[in-house]
Amino acid sequence: MMEKIYIIGVGLIGGSFALDIKRLHPETKIFGIDHNEAHLNEALSLSIIDTTATLDDLKHADLVIVAIPVNATVTLLPEILDNISDSTLVIDVGSTKEDICDAVKNHPKRRNFLAMHPIAGTEFSGPSAAIQNLYKGKTNIICEVEDTAFKLQEKALKLFSEIGMRVRYMKPKAHDKHIAYMSHLSHISSFMLGKTVIEKEKNERDIFDMAGSGFESTVRLAKSSPEMWTPIFQQNKTNVIKTLEEYISNLKQFKEFMEQDDFEAIYKEMKDTNHIKEILKGIA
Amino acid sequence: MMEKIYIIGVGLIGGSFALDIKRLHPETKIFGIDHNEAHLNEALSLSIIDTTATLDDLKHADLVIVAIPVNATVTLLPEILDNISDSTLVIDVGSTKEDICDAVKNHPKRRNFLAMHPIAGTEFSGPSAAIQNLYKGKTNIICEVEDTAFKLQEKALKLFSEIGMRVRYMKPKAHDKHIAYMSHLSHISSFMLGKTVIEKEKNERDIFDMAGSGFESTVRLAKSSPEMWTPIFQQNKTNVIKTLEEYISNLKQFKEFMEQDDFEAIYKEMKDTNHIKEILKGIA
Repeated sequence: MMEKIYIIGVGLIGGSFALDIKRLHPETKIFGIDHNEAHLNEALSLSIIDTTATLDDLKHADLVIVAIPVNATVTLLPEILDNISDSTLVIDVGSTKEDICDAVKNHPKRRNFLAMHPIAGTEFSGPSAAIQNLYKGKTNIICEVEDTAFKLQEKALKLFSEIGMRVRYMKPKAHDKHIAYMSHLSHISSFMLGKTVIEKEKNERDIFDMAGSGFESTVRLAKSSPEMWTPIFQQNKTNVIKTLEEYISNLKQFKEFMEQDDFEAIYKEMKDTNHIKEILKGIA
Repeated sequence: MMEKIYIIGVGLIGGSFALDIKRLHPETKIFGIDHNEAHLNEALSLSIIDTTATLDDLKHADLVIVAIPVNATVTLLPEILDNISDSTLVIDVGSTKEDICDAVKNHPKRRNFLAMHPIAGTEFSGPSAAIQNLYKGKTNIICEVEDTAFKLQEKALKLFSEIGMRVRYMKPKAHDKHIAYMSHLSHISSFMLGKTVIEKEKNERDIFDMAGSGFESTVRLAKSSPEMWTPIFQQNKTNVIKTLEEYISNLKQFKEFMEQDDFEAIYKEMKDTNHIKEILKGIA
């Protein structure tokens, strides 16, 4: 039975969980906790949460979803676990897993915690960005599952299945390494594309008339929240720097092929990379 | 009156023009010319073209749309102009404009030619990728408009307006410089992102389960056709190399900020680039 659900961080990710849970279980009461007053009021008026709460109230919680920037999660998670009851399940949704798991490694309530990363989101943020069915058909990566109490694992898996997520299990270290390639690098490549174009075209605004759907989709992630992404890059620094080195080296080689008029090599680079079509089809 | 329309290159771009023209003017007869037999047969069976033709038939054409890779356009355009009648309008749709305009600068039939670049497309190619309304609401950049006969300009503009395109006029040199930022760089950043991830994860295929919508949209252009893009990069070499230098330099700076643990600077990089939101909203 999950009657009282506390969402810490009522933005895109936390808010979208709240909307799905309320739709599936109208009897639940959803409590919102956020250090941003405006977001709390917005979440109330959008009926994402039923009422506001504080960390002191967590002892009444059946489920706590922690959906705040990953640096705040590392700081706050031990305190959250201090405040809950023996039967409370706490899950976090952060895009990094190693530092978060480390932060509560030896906490007496560690078995009340489930570390996960739902691979879902949009480039928008805040309560108004929350949508129903954001998680439907998406992958949810769960880390250190064996460190969560069996009954609470069961409770969590039932919820994810109802929401329509498919579950994958990984170690935190492997998660952080691979997610650097599959997500964090995409964000930096997109941010730097946006920067390069804005710098160049700042005095020629009408040039953006030339933006087609190709530019728009490649630069889409450059709309993402710096409040959320700065601590992700900080916690995953080593892995992200490695992906950047490889990415920069590939770009330099492409540029050198062009400088050497080696357009056979340019063709081959693209032909080989077209393989991404089959790979993405396989997972769609 | 446009009764006989010849599409040279019956792929995504040429085929999509054929579909719109046929829908708007069912009385037109659409002829397809392509060096790829399989594409011609596909275009016939998809009713994109009514019949096939050869370059010798172009003297009967009211309108010729040249939608082939830009290197082939440079080679073939003079021969196409040799073959047409005095009242034929020839348009090309290439993603580069300087080399193409240069190729027919002194051709006796220069005034029968209109150079343009419709900013529209998808990552797919070939006749089966052709769709109706691809051009609706899209920008069409016309170069050297004053070098096209007035009556043919009028004919062309009427067609673009029926198809729903908005027209912008630019010089070929300016087009090629700005399109390097707004389109060509996006393609390279996407191809190299795909390459970096494939190289890393080639032995761990299940890792692509971690691909979210962020990775998918950022890498989308890496599905594009190397046959089409290699000659574009070749013709726009100088501009593209310059955008790559600036892009690589921005990526290196981002990496250095990370290495120096200067996450305030990382935050600022992203916050400033969020400005792309307003810019893209302005053009949507």
